Amino acid sequence: MQRKITRRIMAGNLAIGGGADISVQSMCNTKTQNVEETLGQIEALCKAGCDIVRLAVPDNEAARVLPEIRKNCKIPLVADIHFDYKLAIAAAKAGFDKIRINPGNIGSEEKVRELARACQENGAAIRVGVNSGSIPSDLLREYGNTPKALCESALRHIRLLEKADFKDICVSLKSSDVSGTVEACRMMSGLTDYPLHLGITESGTPYSGLVKSSVGIGTLLMEGIGDTIRVSLTADPVEEVRAGIAILKAAGLRRCGVNIISCPTCGRTDIDLISLTEKVEALLSGIEKPITVAVMGCAVNGPGEAREADYGIAGGRGEGLLFKNGEIIKKVSEDELAPELLKMIQSDTL
Amino acid sequence: MQRKITRRIMAGNLAIGGGADISVQSMCNTKTQNVEETLGQIEALCKAGCDIVRLAVPDNEAARVLPEIRKNCKIPLVADIHFDYKLAIAAAKAGFDKIRINPGNIGSEEKVRELARACQENGAAIRVGVNSGSIPSDLLREYGNTPKALCESALRHIRLLEKADFKDICVSLKSSDVSGTVEACRMMSGLTDYPLHLGITESGTPYSGLVKSSVGIGTLLMEGIGDTIRVSLTADPVEEVRAGIAILKAAGLRRCGVNIISCPTCGRTDIDLISLTEKVEALLSGIEKPITVAVMGCAVNGPGEAREADYGIAGGRGEGLLFKNGEIIKKVSEDELAPELLKMIQSDTL
Repeated sequence: MQRKITRRIMAGNLAIGGGADISVQSMCNTKTQNVEETLGQIEALCKAGCDIVRLAVPDNEAARVLPEIRKNCKIPLVADIHFDYKLAIAAAKAGFDKIRINPGNIGSEEKVRELARACQENGAAIRVGVNSGSIPSDLLREYGNTPKALCESALRHIRLLEKADFKDICVSLKSSDVSGTVEACRMMSGLTDYPLHLGITESGTPYSGLVKSSVGIGTLLMEGIGDTIRVSLTADPVEEVRAGIAILKAAGLRRCGVNIISCPTCGRTDIDLISLTEKVEALLSGIEKPITVAVMGCAVNGPGEAREADYGIAGGRGEGLLFKNGEIIKKVSEDELAPELLKMIQSDTL
Repeated sequence: MQRKITRRIMAGNLAIGGGADISVQSMCNTKTQNVEETLGQIEALCKAGCDIVRLAVPDNEAARVLPEIRKNCKIPLVADIHFDYKLAIAAAKAGFDKIRINPGNIGSEEKVRELARACQENGAAIRVGVNSGSIPSDLLREYGNTPKALCESALRHIRLLEKADFKDICVSLKSSDVSGTVEACRMMSGLTDYPLHLGITESGTPYSGLVKSSVGIGTLLMEGIGDTIRVSLTADPVEEVRAGIAILKAAGLRRCGVNIISCPTCGRTDIDLISLTEKVEALLSGIEKPITVAVMGCAVNGPGEAREADYGIAGGRGEGLLFKNGEIIKKVSEDELAPELLKMIQSDTL
């Protein structure tokens, strides 16, 4: 698939857009001023593979601790600010790498210029982020609650920054409605070269939120749209990172760790494939090399259907075949399948 | 989104294609000949909302029980057959509504004609289903393992049926690779008007398989492609139905039950939003009317951001607001939020 090449911006040492790898974001749900707790969550997010972390900065209490947080972690940080441009300037001065703020909400063009100057001087980018829930009333009147209204709303904020000669901009257009989000981002991608941050807002619980985000973000990625993603889940933010990485892997945009392909069990299966697959997934979870492992229910379809897999198991009755690059290596008993597979992979990756 | 209008076929009383609602399929993983167990699983799948169920028919033992199974359930049934066209004819005669078989694999044009006749006489449709793992070697040589090879492989089978004057055809092109599947289906959708059955084959465990299927099936649906879907998971088939319905809901193609939108918790949240949302999801799971319910972390963003929701909660400190169509109805304590919401919805839907 051909990715749309956007303007490249930097969030610290992380490139967003311009063909850079698509990054995964999440947001702490700690009170930012609880520095220890916030740093602990940032560390957990880093460990899960997060590329960029956002913190809420609703007031001075939160703004005050930003320098300390910045000093004590290395990951690119984003400050989430709603109306008070002084908090945004404080975040830029604290060394935050990106500020999420909508310049149309901060009061005057003079304030926008001041904000843009502070971001330029401190090397911070700005994300303009519009949601279907906060479209200005004149745009709602003109366009209704439509993708067009979302785009116009984002363009208004962008023009304010451009007027202040600021172009290190990333844009998000989010709706809790998947179709609305997809259409708005498709439209925006045609209207601007700024990198796009993708997400479905308020997507919900770990299950339905995962599906909504996979469908929405996934569709855009599969159409070559999007430069950085954030899965919003009402859950531990670490789950957002896991989901983001899984979406990128599914879209073929990130290769890391084990990709398990496994057949649904069917009337032909003689082995307990569900628990075998779970065992394989757990045993191989520590492997970082990008490999594809097939866990197939029957020997007939196994190595053939899964010939693109690097390694594989084909189950039989109480036993199974281990295969590698489509070649059968050996037959082992059901209990030994997962550990023997791990051994084989480990001896190859050492 | 504009859906591609395909030729309509019938599987029993279920229309597939031609603008019909997109149906959700799954496949039993019982031994088909264990009639009681198979019927039990069919019932569980129906209860989960499945629209069409497939059974493996690998041999005569399985074929023999098909009339009994057909007699004892109402849902459209599909027989999954690999090489033996006599099993396919037996399934059609047993009243099965669709046969999954690739006519290029059954031996001769005469056999294809015999199969087509049996299907026509008994009102059975045929699904041609090609997988990236079983592309004929001449096509692999000519096109490599590409979407084009998958399409050509499917077209070959289709032409055999057309030659036998059979057109009640549904087509699937599956790869365990999401991008490969998406590209093949996009291509096929441009080449033929037969309805498409979508799925990612061997998509894996409940988590990564859910993400792969949501990205792959979701992308195609969001582009207007696809008439019936099956999520393959290495899990209880009921999970496949749950996933299929969730994907259709996310894509805006099915409205049923409660759609929960809930914000990710953030530094502004003063309420235990994760457990509140889970409680709301559980309490409202029995509601069939299609309604959107917002569970928002803070009163500031709550009713505004979620104004499109039919009902909602906006959390505060130890309490929260209940709202309906964007209007605040009342303030209640944290413990009472979920039950009061349920009461409000129930009194409206009675």
